[in-house]
Amino acid sequence: MKIFEGIIAYPITPFDQSEKVDISLFQSLTERLVQAGAGGIAPLGSTGVLPYLQDDEKEAVTLAALQQVNGRVPVLVGVSHLTTERTIHHARFAEKAGATAVMIIPMSYWKLTEEEIFRHYDRVASQLSIPIMAYNNPATGGIDMSPALLKRLLEIPNVTMIKESTGDIQRMHYLRKALGEEVTFYNGSNPLALAAFAAGASGWCTAAFNLIPELNNQLYAAIRKNDLAQAQALFYRQFELLQFIVAKGLPAAIQAGLKIQGIESGYLRSPLQELNPADYQRLVQLLNAVN
Amino acid sequence: MKIFEGIIAYPITPFDQSEKVDISLFQSLTERLVQAGAGGIAPLGSTGVLPYLQDDEKEAVTLAALQQVNGRVPVLVGVSHLTTERTIHHARFAEKAGATAVMIIPMSYWKLTEEEIFRHYDRVASQLSIPIMAYNNPATGGIDMSPALLKRLLEIPNVTMIKESTGDIQRMHYLRKALGEEVTFYNGSNPLALAAFAAGASGWCTAAFNLIPELNNQLYAAIRKNDLAQAQALFYRQFELLQFIVAKGLPAAIQAGLKIQGIESGYLRSPLQELNPADYQRLVQLLNAVN
Amino acid sequence: MKIFEGIIAYPITPFDQSEKVDISLFQSLTERLVQAGAGGIAPLGSTGVLPYLQDDEKEAVTLAALQQVNGRVPVLVGVSHLTTERTIHHARFAEKAGATAVMIIPMSYWKLTEEEIFRHYDRVASQLSIPIMAYNNPATGGIDMSPALLKRLLEIPNVTMIKESTGDIQRMHYLRKALGEEVTFYNGSNPLALAAFAAGASGWCTAAFNLIPELNNQLYAAIRKNDLAQAQALFYRQFELLQFIVAKGLPAAIQAGLKIQGIESGYLRSPLQELNPADYQRLVQLLNAVN
Amino acid sequence: MKIFEGIIAYPITPFDQSEKVDISLFQSLTERLVQAGAGGIAPLGSTGVLPYLQDDEKEAVTLAALQQVNGRVPVLVGVSHLTTERTIHHARFAEKAGATAVMIIPMSYWKLTEEEIFRHYDRVASQLSIPIMAYNNPATGGIDMSPALLKRLLEIPNVTMIKESTGDIQRMHYLRKALGEEVTFYNGSNPLALAAFAAGASGWCTAAFNLIPELNNQLYAAIRKNDLAQAQALFYRQFELLQFIVAKGLPAAIQAGLKIQGIESGYLRSPLQELNPADYQRLVQLLNAVN
Repeated sequence: MKIFEGIIAYPITPFDQSEKVDISLFQSLTERLVQAGAGGIAPLGSTGVLPYLQDDEKEAVTLAALQQVNGRVPVLVGVSHLTTERTIHHARFAEKAGATAVMIIPMSYWKLTEEEIFRHYDRVASQLSIPIMAYNNPATGGIDMSPALLKRLLEIPNVTMIKESTGDIQRMHYLRKALGEEVTFYNGSNPLALAAFAAGASGWCTAAFNLIPELNNQLYAAIRKNDLAQAQALFYRQFELLQFIVAKGLPAAIQAGLKIQGIESGYLRSPLQELNPADYQRLVQLLNAVN
Repeated sequence: MKIFEGIIAYPITPFDQSEKVDISLFQSLTERLVQAGAGGIAPLGSTGVLPYLQDDEKEAVTLAALQQVNGRVPVLVGVSHLTTERTIHHARFAEKAGATAVMIIPMSYWKLTEEEIFRHYDRVASQLSIPIMAYNNPATGGIDMSPALLKRLLEIPNVTMIKESTGDIQRMHYLRKALGEEVTFYNGSNPLALAAFAAGASGWCTAAFNLIPELNNQLYAAIRKNDLAQAQALFYRQFELLQFIVAKGLPAAIQAGLKIQGIESGYLRSPLQELNPADYQRLVQLLNAVN
Repeated sequence: MKIFEGIIAYPITPFDQSEKVDISLFQSLTERLVQAGAGGIAPLGSTGVLPYLQDDEKEAVTLAALQQVNGRVPVLVGVSHLTTERTIHHARFAEKAGATAVMIIPMSYWKLTEEEIFRHYDRVASQLSIPIMAYNNPATGGIDMSPALLKRLLEIPNVTMIKESTGDIQRMHYLRKALGEEVTFYNGSNPLALAAFAAGASGWCTAAFNLIPELNNQLYAAIRKNDLAQAQALFYRQFELLQFIVAKGLPAAIQAGLKIQGIESGYLRSPLQELNPADYQRLVQLLNAVN
Repeated sequence: MKIFEGIIAYPITPFDQSEKVDISLFQSLTERLVQAGAGGIAPLGSTGVLPYLQDDEKEAVTLAALQQVNGRVPVLVGVSHLTTERTIHHARFAEKAGATAVMIIPMSYWKLTEEEIFRHYDRVASQLSIPIMAYNNPATGGIDMSPALLKRLLEIPNVTMIKESTGDIQRMHYLRKALGEEVTFYNGSNPLALAAFAAGASGWCTAAFNLIPELNNQLYAAIRKNDLAQAQALFYRQFELLQFIVAKGLPAAIQAGLKIQGIESGYLRSPLQELNPADYQRLVQLLNAVN
């Protein structure tokens, strides 16, 4: 049994005008995702601007997410930090608070060796009893874990899932081939959604679910029905929107997209800035086109 | 009606021990591809080491291919050259000899501007009446044509097909989305075969057909039947072999693979060298595994 | 008058065995740098593992550095943070504590637009009266500021210095040419030391000064005497060591190098790990070779 | 004794309006370079569009260059070709015609392994008695030879010189350090001229000598006098022009620059096109600025 299947939805972390986390708004945005049929909720991901939050803010968001979801779907909490000690701290906090699993990306300032990365995961895992999803996203975290290293991480008992966000479909082919059908890997690159499902991904980790949950769900349903033609058609309906939100940065793009759809979405934390007017208009067009 | 569909097979250009082109062996290798059910034959591609041949050798191979195929399937002749004048020369030669279409990659020593590339295609096209397949493969040709430039090339009347070999599935998504379902694009990156068909590619240009024609055909058949699960299973059976032949270079890998399968495949032309013993043994294993 | 000239030395931040900052050891290591003739001291740089420290640790290190240096040479305090608010906080803290200037690298998780970067610097600068050194180092910070953007940052009143660490000498040529002889740019790429001085850099920001202060100073002296032949000879004496410490990561390499030289240097904070035995032996050889 | 020192000048290969090689114009352009004080003449380099010429054209240019120079300075003839057999052919032709040395870049369509590259050089060298300059320029040839491979090539008896054109100054530092002061390496990256001389390059291989021979010679003279300050000033006078001609492609930029200076320079061979009007005007400004 896989813990997460289908679409794992990533809420944004909204801020008020003075750039403080707005917990109440966060909870209502999270509620929308649950009600739209997400296969899981993932607070404090890249979309949730985890690295831009202080320790106490991370804890407040973790508690708020778990309280709101209240067991209706599994919850995957982001707990990544530059230091091993702080990663352990947040991972244990999430476990105690009731998280189903935690997601960890090896963040970098100094590039880590493979040994340093392995030890980092191993030390965190040794302090936890819930599963860990190892998350590879060099574009944000600054470290590119090779498929071979990801395979090695799966030797750590509770590292049981991989989220691959490089956008290189060959990575997934390798993982599936090297690890067999039992491995649970997830796609974190939005424009790769169709190719990743075709390659056998167990699910799609996406912030797009904030804006187009039905299209996301329908794509996954077509895949489950083994209907490639329909999946392809559904994918191309959302492709340009997926490209756009990735190109503009998920926090700003989702915050704007929600606003366009009439949903309160708060403010961003500096240095992140809202979409410029031209990008905002483009997003209006893209959302009109898919609806 | 699309000229080429399914698997377009790329024969190697075999040499004798003194590194001269072996036309008779080339014809028997081409015959195998036709009989194995190729949807088209493409002599003088990258696999056919086009740029390593002298003008008269290119002409001899063109004639030999057309004579051997003898109209049973369409023939796509590679005519690329660094200069526009020589490209026109070879394209016209192919047309006169009876080629169904020509394939052109913009070869580079000096990087060409988009304008230079467009004029190159435009001038060649103006001298031809048969269709042109624009071929993008920066790893060999040294120039990366953006999807936007490829789209622009399609404005030239007889540039009607695109072969994309970057291995980046997003290029194909863009082409399909920007050009509509009518555009005819082909995948030239072997490990992308499944993802490209999922994205809507009309065909797969591959040298793998020299070694595993049944698996290639079966994958295409599964796609035609809209059976993603079967296509995925078939793809993963050949995936490691596809990776291997690309990683080692198609001319050397195919030459060795044929030999392993008991088929005479001649010699390579220097500086290209045969697979080293370790790679050869790995290929033996991979071929055993798929058969 | 330039605030910093010659060699600006970067102390490491040492930890005790339980990975807590060892302030007293930090002060003795800083004292060595002053006594060895550094042209400036730069605590909380990349070498000082700034991003791996908690807020209170950063403040303690800032105070300790300023107390120890005690006005003998100018002090450049690293105050970079992912958020604008925290950057302002640390910059103001450094100013109040008596820092001569602050150094800011635009750290990234989400890639920032040029506008976001400019606003980040501008907002921080508006809250400060001491000068800012804008620091470009995509290998650590994850953002590559173009020479044109760096030039634009200099329009902000108290952004008066640039530290370029890409290792691309052309960036420095551009800066010098675009900004005139009055611009103050510093080299932060150790193996570029000779080329950067030849290009007109005002100084060299380096952790190597922890290990080979005399060689660093002699290279700068030769440049001041306009003696290229001697500068070249001195550079090649230290080149392999410079390459090594960059390749292995400055915190681990300097910590090991000090130990090899019989100087207490503490421990690293995880996930950063000490040099492996082979690298340690190589460093022993390199240090023997230069002394 | 080094064969080539100082500035090695690269003539363009001019064409007439029908894109045929204009041998007589080539000779007059070559004569200018000799009279301007070049330390050597290098026909059939990248600037001389070697790969765009047919075999008989290469031979005609070789003969014309040697006849024109007539022993006044050493001549370095480009003889690179994709195949080993044709490289040997042209190298032997150059030797018989009286070339001082030949320059060879490993051209690629299929990426070559290090072993294939080594054997290529070794086989060519075994057929020659004059020295070979191994030329590394991945931007044109498509293959990046590591410093370690370049070092290995120097084990082949008559491979005695290296021309490094990656623009990465660290390559030169490595070569000098790994090979000692006796190694003869040349810089082929124009904007690296100052840094390369500072690093100990024996000479500068440049097409800029067609346009600004005095500035090129003066820079070299300042280096010979160990006057870094003067070399730096002279370098910055020509830096923007050097950047420009590299960015626009040497054949088109030099052809235009000569025309601007009132010197007949013929036409280019397609697909290479002349500078567009905006670039042409920019070159007018740059040439005015240096004169």
